Amino acid sequence: MREEIEIGIREAIPTDAEALLDCLERTAVQTGFMTMGEEGSGLTVEEESQHIANIYDSPNNCLIVALIEDKIIGMATIHASNKPKIQHIGELGIVVDKEYWGFKIGTELLQEVLDWAEASEMINRIELKVQKRNERAIHLYEKYGFELEGIMERGVKDNGEYLPVCMMAKLI
Amino acid sequence: MREEIEIGIREAIPTDAEALLDCLERTAVQTGFMTMGEEGSGLTVEEESQHIANIYDSPNNCLIVALIEDKIIGMATIHASNKPKIQHIGELGIVVDKEYWGFKIGTELLQEVLDWAEASEMINRIELKVQKRNERAIHLYEKYGFELEGIMERGVKDNGEYLPVCMMAKLI
Repeated sequence: MREEIEIGIREAIPTDAEALLDCLERTAVQTGFMTMGEEGSGLTVEEESQHIANIYDSPNNCLIVALIEDKIIGMATIHASNKPKIQHIGELGIVVDKEYWGFKIGTELLQEVLDWAEASEMINRIELKVQKRNERAIHLYEKYGFELEGIMERGVKDNGEYLPVCMMAKLI
Repeated sequence: MREEIEIGIREAIPTDAEALLDCLERTAVQTGFMTMGEEGSGLTVEEESQHIANIYDSPNNCLIVALIEDKIIGMATIHASNKPKIQHIGELGIVVDKEYWGFKIGTELLQEVLDWAEASEMINRIELKVQKRNERAIHLYEKYGFELEGIMERGVKDNGEYLPVCMMAKLI
């Protein structure tokens, strides 16, 4: 018998703040792939709640969460500036709780956030940074049409070691 | 007889706030090279003053100004994150009032900010974005050891047109 996990995918709402901070705190120390480390986001639940509300109301920012019941186990974000000259550029970030790797949650989050961006009136370039050693993620992004634009030497420092970071982008 | 202009170069202090905002407002509309446009910084003098104080006290952020008497005619900034994994990366920005192009002010600002970065205990990668059409600036950066890492398609929108942006970096 095959185990089925019921996973919900939807835009985040302010009351997700606590579950979202929990997810960030867990995932930040599971791998060295995130820019955030054990220092955490530094945000209170109230600040995060306001942050989510601002994103929800923004035409070029987006936050999608993956849930099992009330637990957030992954998220995809599009962050864009409000400066007119660059408001068409969305920076993508995806994180999935390591406990739930292998269930295609990253793929589902990516599809959802790309659908959101395509439906938006503003975003027509999605860019991202991903560590060169994170081959699983790079493979996923390539499969969805992202192209390598450059490699940043010393793009991140993890455990005292400087690592290269790939810059990828997809025009939509 | 050759005209001499006396130009001061130094770190910005909080009381420079008003002159700095004036400079940003002038330069933002002189060319299409800046990411900021006619919308301006949106900061009050008081906010800018606090911002300068924060930069002045930061170990990995820096703001250098070029002055003629009390007028700020150019600036160089290093902006870095406080996240441990990327606090070694400084993003460089330089702007010079178009009225004063041709006096090597950009070169002096760049030298000063590189000296600052080399003396800092934290910064060992300086990166920047520059529009591909801004050949004068690219030439200056190359002369000072910056290398092209990639080209961002649609990296900026100016007058309704999408333009490529170069990402350059220098390891120190």
